[in-house]
Amino acid sequence: MPAAYIAGVGQTPFGKLDDDLVTLMERACVAALVDTGATSVDAIIVGSQTSDELAHASNLGTRVADRLGLSGVAAWRVENSSGTGSALLEAAVLAVRSGAYESVLAVGGERMTDHPTGVTAKVLGRVLADNEIALGMTMPSLGAMVARAYMERYGLTREVLAMAPVKAHANAVRNPYAHFRKVVDADKVLGSSMVADPLRVFDCAPVSDGAAAVAVTSKSAAVEVAGVGHGTDRLALADRRGEGLRATQLASQRAYADAGLSPEDIDFAELHDAFSILEIIDSEDVGFFPRGEGWRALEAGVTAIDGDLPVNVSGGLKARGHPVGATGLAQVAEVVWQLRGQAEGRQLDGVGTGLAQNIGGFGCNNLVTIMRRVD
Amino acid sequence: MPAAYIAGVGQTPFGKLDDDLVTLMERACVAALVDTGATSVDAIIVGSQTSDELAHASNLGTRVADRLGLSGVAAWRVENSSGTGSALLEAAVLAVRSGAYESVLAVGGERMTDHPTGVTAKVLGRVLADNEIALGMTMPSLGAMVARAYMERYGLTREVLAMAPVKAHANAVRNPYAHFRKVVDADKVLGSSMVADPLRVFDCAPVSDGAAAVAVTSKSAAVEVAGVGHGTDRLALADRRGEGLRATQLASQRAYADAGLSPEDIDFAELHDAFSILEIIDSEDVGFFPRGEGWRALEAGVTAIDGDLPVNVSGGLKARGHPVGATGLAQVAEVVWQLRGQAEGRQLDGVGTGLAQNIGGFGCNNLVTIMRRVD
Repeated sequence: MPAAYIAGVGQTPFGKLDDDLVTLMERACVAALVDTGATSVDAIIVGSQTSDELAHASNLGTRVADRLGLSGVAAWRVENSSGTGSALLEAAVLAVRSGAYESVLAVGGERMTDHPTGVTAKVLGRVLADNEIALGMTMPSLGAMVARAYMERYGLTREVLAMAPVKAHANAVRNPYAHFRKVVDADKVLGSSMVADPLRVFDCAPVSDGAAAVAVTSKSAAVEVAGVGHGTDRLALADRRGEGLRATQLASQRAYADAGLSPEDIDFAELHDAFSILEIIDSEDVGFFPRGEGWRALEAGVTAIDGDLPVNVSGGLKARGHPVGATGLAQVAEVVWQLRGQAEGRQLDGVGTGLAQNIGGFGCNNLVTIMRRVD
Repeated sequence: MPAAYIAGVGQTPFGKLDDDLVTLMERACVAALVDTGATSVDAIIVGSQTSDELAHASNLGTRVADRLGLSGVAAWRVENSSGTGSALLEAAVLAVRSGAYESVLAVGGERMTDHPTGVTAKVLGRVLADNEIALGMTMPSLGAMVARAYMERYGLTREVLAMAPVKAHANAVRNPYAHFRKVVDADKVLGSSMVADPLRVFDCAPVSDGAAAVAVTSKSAAVEVAGVGHGTDRLALADRRGEGLRATQLASQRAYADAGLSPEDIDFAELHDAFSILEIIDSEDVGFFPRGEGWRALEAGVTAIDGDLPVNVSGGLKARGHPVGATGLAQVAEVVWQLRGQAEGRQLDGVGTGLAQNIGGFGCNNLVTIMRRVD
């Protein structure tokens, strides 16, 4: 079957923006087409989690194709809650590997900042199990339980946990696409408002607007999609077994198998840090560190921009921002820029293989994508 | 690349039902798994147009996988407004042809009848272009304009147009899954309330609840997916050029090319008759009849159940019902049952190749699927 390459990437800045959802997607698509050096593609796959309820926009595939002047091409929508971006990439890779389409443009976007926090939280919270919603649980309250359990079991302190957002903000200062480009210190994190004990405001990714696009092609390009993996777990947290997120563990095993690679081959990664604790757990689930050791790597600076295995050089969800349907493709864009040596101001030295990990729902529908520079 | 076969199909009855959306999907999936003779699949692709706004259900991929006891497998959502069902089938076929998944369960469903007509119409009407919505246009008003133009240009009379719903209802009497299983005559159609002149209530598909599921596999089975085609057109009707629906014309050309077949090879079809006029236009767009001649075929009984080229033996959207996200897969299920000789009470004689055509939005994002009995 044809291999799948990434021909071009593009994104809008993330933050509180003026443009409507379709315009954000159009801007990201145009950026990706310019980066590709192409004026057309064979298919467009559009993604958004909250487009119906928060943006009141439907028929998105046709709408984006029309706005790009590409009416005629196949177009459809893929949605996987906060894992939409990476599911878009998977769908584009499957379409190219199937031989049905030579070039596919995947675009994810979200328009979220127009509504009061209560409305946004309600829409986002519907990803949980019915019994969790009935009990009043929210995404942050589940994140807090996971954080508390990890801290008690493995000795992670609140102070070390704060190092994740501090690192994210320090990195985002160097990223022109980031929602927040300001340094924060541990005191700022530890002094911020409590959301769900032990998680504070600075432990949680923000609500952002933005879009990101990736062009996948069967023609050889500088970066290859070496492997894609996708896994799920029980919907309700109480129904799950084992430690960490099984959906990530399955996704990463499948991605490594697809790529013929192992964790030791990865030079850097973008991990889904919707909450500070998740960056630590993710780094264990994808096999970088043994269970319970991820926080020690964070503390020792292993995952810092100048460490042996940099994580979230972009600023991550915490500081680059988290327009949910765009996040997975923004991770891919960052990996591609790093692999091509184009991550101006935050470029890693000598990286050849990068990994992106994206979470859908509260850790129940996750994807891992491994990309490799073609020498 | 691997060929894609249909290993199993299943659906709920369509109509005003009691079960919630996820339960409807679960029932259709179980029916398809039983038909397949399998207890598991490698991936689940779930589809619904209005799940967020009308059913308040999100994270559907994970939710359906969990309900089926299949947590672990890849799962995601595909949405293409009223063309969701066929887009689900295309996504499943691409996934199998890519070699990434050996078996994929596609399920589409909709839970629509809980709301006042005004709410449902508003949600469904968002598929139109912004300027159409601003002008007060609705799906039926666009259908009426298309009907009026065709009648004036080609001499179709209101009486012959009524033969489409009369035929649909006559066929649906024989289909145990149909929303309406009662005969109607031309007087009933012509005496029903006016919706948008010249279209009356009996020219329009109903709002229905229901779900349909199809299992696609790389292992040889009785029915093969011979070809899939997908096309789009400008979003706003006023921006389009030419006659008929270009999106269907592109989709059918691509499906015939994919299958290595031509319109003469098709023995019967399921066409998207959301409005009576569409069955006629569809039958020309897929190449069965020359432009302007489709109504003569309807009048002459060519597309009747005992005609040379039966169309909508299931009852079509008009009488089988139209739970939007399920419709495209219900068309596929009907074609598969006919090809296998299992369409009890409405079985066509000696059919080897069938076609399904599904419309997204107001005719702007359409798909054609060609299926063939493997002898």
